[in-house]
Amino acid sequence: MLSFESDYIQGCHERILQALVASNYEREPGYGADSYSRRAAEKIRRACECPKAEVFFIAGGTQTNQLVISTLLDSHEGVLAAATGHIACHEAGAIEYSGHKVLELPQKEGKISARDLSAWLTEFSMDQNRDHLVFPGMVYLSQPTEYGTLYSLEELMDIRNICDAFGLRLYIDGARLGYGLASACNDVSLPDLARLCDAFYIGGTKVGALCGEALVFPFGAPKQFLTKVKQRGAMLAKGRLIGVQFDTLFTDDLYLKISQHAMAMAEKLRDVFVEAGFTLHMPLVSNQIFIVLTMDQRNVLSTHLRFSFWERLDSECCVIRLAASWATTEQEVEELRAVLKEFKKEMEMLK
Amino acid sequence: MLSFESDYIQGCHERILQALVASNYEREPGYGADSYSRRAAEKIRRACECPKAEVFFIAGGTQTNQLVISTLLDSHEGVLAAATGHIACHEAGAIEYSGHKVLELPQKEGKISARDLSAWLTEFSMDQNRDHLVFPGMVYLSQPTEYGTLYSLEELMDIRNICDAFGLRLYIDGARLGYGLASACNDVSLPDLARLCDAFYIGGTKVGALCGEALVFPFGAPKQFLTKVKQRGAMLAKGRLIGVQFDTLFTDDLYLKISQHAMAMAEKLRDVFVEAGFTLHMPLVSNQIFIVLTMDQRNVLSTHLRFSFWERLDSECCVIRLAASWATTEQEVEELRAVLKEFKKEMEMLK
Amino acid sequence: MLSFESDYIQGCHERILQALVASNYEREPGYGADSYSRRAAEKIRRACECPKAEVFFIAGGTQTNQLVISTLLDSHEGVLAAATGHIACHEAGAIEYSGHKVLELPQKEGKISARDLSAWLTEFSMDQNRDHLVFPGMVYLSQPTEYGTLYSLEELMDIRNICDAFGLRLYIDGARLGYGLASACNDVSLPDLARLCDAFYIGGTKVGALCGEALVFPFGAPKQFLTKVKQRGAMLAKGRLIGVQFDTLFTDDLYLKISQHAMAMAEKLRDVFVEAGFTLHMPLVSNQIFIVLTMDQRNVLSTHLRFSFWERLDSECCVIRLAASWATTEQEVEELRAVLKEFKKEMEMLK
Amino acid sequence: MLSFESDYIQGCHERILQALVASNYEREPGYGADSYSRRAAEKIRRACECPKAEVFFIAGGTQTNQLVISTLLDSHEGVLAAATGHIACHEAGAIEYSGHKVLELPQKEGKISARDLSAWLTEFSMDQNRDHLVFPGMVYLSQPTEYGTLYSLEELMDIRNICDAFGLRLYIDGARLGYGLASACNDVSLPDLARLCDAFYIGGTKVGALCGEALVFPFGAPKQFLTKVKQRGAMLAKGRLIGVQFDTLFTDDLYLKISQHAMAMAEKLRDVFVEAGFTLHMPLVSNQIFIVLTMDQRNVLSTHLRFSFWERLDSECCVIRLAASWATTEQEVEELRAVLKEFKKEMEMLK
Repeated sequence: MLSFESDYIQGCHERILQALVASNYEREPGYGADSYSRRAAEKIRRACECPKAEVFFIAGGTQTNQLVISTLLDSHEGVLAAATGHIACHEAGAIEYSGHKVLELPQKEGKISARDLSAWLTEFSMDQNRDHLVFPGMVYLSQPTEYGTLYSLEELMDIRNICDAFGLRLYIDGARLGYGLASACNDVSLPDLARLCDAFYIGGTKVGALCGEALVFPFGAPKQFLTKVKQRGAMLAKGRLIGVQFDTLFTDDLYLKISQHAMAMAEKLRDVFVEAGFTLHMPLVSNQIFIVLTMDQRNVLSTHLRFSFWERLDSECCVIRLAASWATTEQEVEELRAVLKEFKKEMEMLK
Repeated sequence: MLSFESDYIQGCHERILQALVASNYEREPGYGADSYSRRAAEKIRRACECPKAEVFFIAGGTQTNQLVISTLLDSHEGVLAAATGHIACHEAGAIEYSGHKVLELPQKEGKISARDLSAWLTEFSMDQNRDHLVFPGMVYLSQPTEYGTLYSLEELMDIRNICDAFGLRLYIDGARLGYGLASACNDVSLPDLARLCDAFYIGGTKVGALCGEALVFPFGAPKQFLTKVKQRGAMLAKGRLIGVQFDTLFTDDLYLKISQHAMAMAEKLRDVFVEAGFTLHMPLVSNQIFIVLTMDQRNVLSTHLRFSFWERLDSECCVIRLAASWATTEQEVEELRAVLKEFKKEMEMLK
Repeated sequence: MLSFESDYIQGCHERILQALVASNYEREPGYGADSYSRRAAEKIRRACECPKAEVFFIAGGTQTNQLVISTLLDSHEGVLAAATGHIACHEAGAIEYSGHKVLELPQKEGKISARDLSAWLTEFSMDQNRDHLVFPGMVYLSQPTEYGTLYSLEELMDIRNICDAFGLRLYIDGARLGYGLASACNDVSLPDLARLCDAFYIGGTKVGALCGEALVFPFGAPKQFLTKVKQRGAMLAKGRLIGVQFDTLFTDDLYLKISQHAMAMAEKLRDVFVEAGFTLHMPLVSNQIFIVLTMDQRNVLSTHLRFSFWERLDSECCVIRLAASWATTEQEVEELRAVLKEFKKEMEMLK
Repeated sequence: MLSFESDYIQGCHERILQALVASNYEREPGYGADSYSRRAAEKIRRACECPKAEVFFIAGGTQTNQLVISTLLDSHEGVLAAATGHIACHEAGAIEYSGHKVLELPQKEGKISARDLSAWLTEFSMDQNRDHLVFPGMVYLSQPTEYGTLYSLEELMDIRNICDAFGLRLYIDGARLGYGLASACNDVSLPDLARLCDAFYIGGTKVGALCGEALVFPFGAPKQFLTKVKQRGAMLAKGRLIGVQFDTLFTDDLYLKISQHAMAMAEKLRDVFVEAGFTLHMPLVSNQIFIVLTMDQRNVLSTHLRFSFWERLDSECCVIRLAASWATTEQEVEELRAVLKEFKKEMEMLK
């Protein structure tokens, strides 16, 4: 069945596959000391225009978040995040498992505002029982957010300024960063992120790789970071597996190109839905499309197409999510068009 | 340069590579719910003759050890291990990071004895300050051990009996299990492990896979184990990556066959060394060969060949380690023979 | 200066002081094995009509909460609490430090409702991404709450039923339990708590003791609990210090009597405020009195009297808190009356 | 029955008791902000000749060790300690519970040597797999040790120099520090400790207090230490309880005087044993006396006298421990003399 359920349902980009095959019998040292990882790190430093950045390759996103947050925070500190942030909701308490509280901020379409952040920090700093509270040590953002929205460069600079004023670190979760970079709405570049963040990661798993995220510390990593990675069970013996993939993704702008392809497909998918009379829940920003359906419509559509249930709106309506990806094809767009025609017929017969 | 530095310096077995290529564009659900992981689990249950076993695929060995130990132990319990056990030495304190002490037992060639274990537990149970001590909750063994040696079935049964008598769980780290199973010295089968252990893992990373270990709970996993995996940052979005690999390894006995190949190569490598007049530090048991060298010999040999430094014996002599693997070829054996001739000539010139 | 700042600003009740003096040179074993702790535990079991309860004496409230929650929860579970609950706000992240998330529920005057609890749990159980969420493992209540309010027996029974239906444990923080038991509004007895809770504690620190809380597990404590207490740094060498205090508090109903005295004083203090024309923020339930003041009134009153700032209501008004305790005297009530007269004069002069 | 079982079987020194009574109804703020704690801290700073020291009062020794070690170490670091050190043996894994490994060093009569320490650190720094090991971050010593022995000033200076050379912190557990300071064998003063250590604690629980240890950071405490104390459940609401006790102990040299008294008593107890023909296991250094007995002797003596079993020497002999304390009286010495006479008679009748 046609599926836009998520952006991690297929393997990896053809060129990554070729690189894995081509490098397979080469002898490389383990634990990230291989030549592919070193080359990939160098290419990422160049893409970020940040020659002093330290780059590490980690197998997954939750693991990366846990690593960064637990090593950048002091033990009495927590991390501020949107109430809808991945670390606040969908990581099974991974941050709390590492001993730190996630301090929730109000959000709109997945984004926090500089104003709310500033108000929270001002209130905290004036609380006379401060010593008995969790101290804010870091702001966590996702770019794009869990709702596919993007922070503008101005918004990020405002948040960075507040972090500086209150002595906080800034960390950005870029699980789908490629799709954000390729968005028509975007004005934030990799060099911007490297200037503004204490740490961020460039997501591979959802942007063309089999696994792996590239973690960047523009101003240097926590002391003896490799040992901390090992201690948290996050070090791969064959580090080359991720090294080869990111080396490929950062050769000839592949990372950006496949993200641009995904965005072009996302726009076409959106158009097909709009032309068929569906209502968008919010405008398309990155690779995720949110459509409003009645519960009946959802039930019927789900016999034709795989998608994600997102949330209920009220007793009658709900939101579904579809994701385009590096692997989405023109043919799938056409298949969707045909499926929606079938769907409309069926819905009319039900009346 | 010719290298026998370790068994994780090359990619993966050809058939795994082919399976990754063949499955690449198939659409599979994430987080271990894919059809490959399900099939692989079923094949492993069959190989273990244990239809009720629960099987999980985890990216690496330290991560697997940390997961199993931290979820099977109660918070006041520690894990008993050989002082040379991987968790006691080379995991950067991953077990302590999860809150549990590694209680060290004396070892010989990497193995603990039922007698020492029993003596330790008896002493503990008679200590009047017991309430102030770390309670033993589990025995950790590695099969093969870090020294390449193997527990016999009788030894494992004795240890299991002691575990039962004192209420302890038994866990076996099988990072190199394939090479153990294929050893001429071995009398322990997968079904034996499934009968004797509360948990064990079948290592993939060092036995032909790019990454991944198959964790087996013969009598059922800890409650809500998937959430515990996620919470520890150990869940891959594209679980298929490991699923495909273990599905291949457990098709047509590939896991055993490539291990047998490695053992045949290990024996040949050993023979080449012995014929060239070198001294073995201990008899060959699994895929690791330990050779005694003078420091001078080591320095010269290292200009011809890559190997691991193992340990110093005294002021003049040391032990080096070489590993055969699924990828070792006949040609490499011949190259070694040639290298050792060169080496001998060079050594004589130095006299 | 006259002070009603909190209920822990003075030492301990006279009879506790006498008991400490009287027992001082007796030789008693350490770590809670002393005869006083044993006797106190027995008296508490009797007061709870729960002969099988296990009772432990712990130095402080946050420590007790941390101990109970971290030993009763499985590692993937979190604890549900009112957003105003002590563990959610004022324990510096002690629960998260032990690895568990505090899952916040809406509250009214410090209380959660069975309806909200049930709705939360139902939604959780229907979430298809459940495996990626923190599992609810326990409900935490405080009795009285941080706002001095009380759960009725019916409310507690409803919450217990929901806990049973969803497999959750119920834990009650009784830091000020005595004042709750002595309240005219109360219909929940110690035997009720012992029937309904998996664990609760009877607060000493705020109810007449120098330090110490009596932790009660009506259905038995977690396995090897003493070792878990030691491991968390919570075991006192001279356990007698708390044993003597609770032995005294549970002799001749002292705990209840001094709480009744505190409640009588609280009512008088409230009456003095009301007679002087002040507005109560909420009706008096236990030993805490909440008064609405303008900011000007607060500033003037604070030159006559020590109290706690509670919260701002709007740009002009705020709430202050005063606490009566076991140590409050009739004389202090009269002093308050005089102070309020002075205050009124001063306020009029300011007009 | 006459008992020298330990130094924490009786309450507190008379003058502490009086101070608790005298201060009981004074109104003092909570959480360590009381005037007694402030005064006590100031007196300790003066006794240490260290005006910049930060001093905190913590309820117990294991808690203090856990606090100091978990806040001074970086997450990838462990703590080096004698294999007989309290944190290595008798704290139920409290250090591991906080995430850090205790790295054991060889010991003699409870002491480590600068030579062994230096050898360990040199070997570590040369290990090529260093990144996979627990990093040494701190040296833990106890003064006096668990065997009652003392480090000389020269020994401490040597250890400090090694710590400096390798970038380690030095922490001293002074659970029985008073008895060490009062020993005829001692040449280490409080100002010496304040010069040499990054942290140390002055034990109260075993030296005349009901509870409490004074934790000293001569060069400043970890950032926001109070919040870290609260987060670990180690903050007492009525901080005055320990403040009053240390204020008393550091008034008119009481801490030293009662320790000197204990040492005088220890010497007399030792003399009584020696005169009665018993063998000392090791010379008396601080307040603990170690006597060699046959198992028969132990059984008979235990019907007359309470003491601690220390360890077995061989199949026939064992070592028992007796502790003198601030509370030991001349009368008890005489009672011991009488008891030993009885004991001898009884032993002769058994022949």
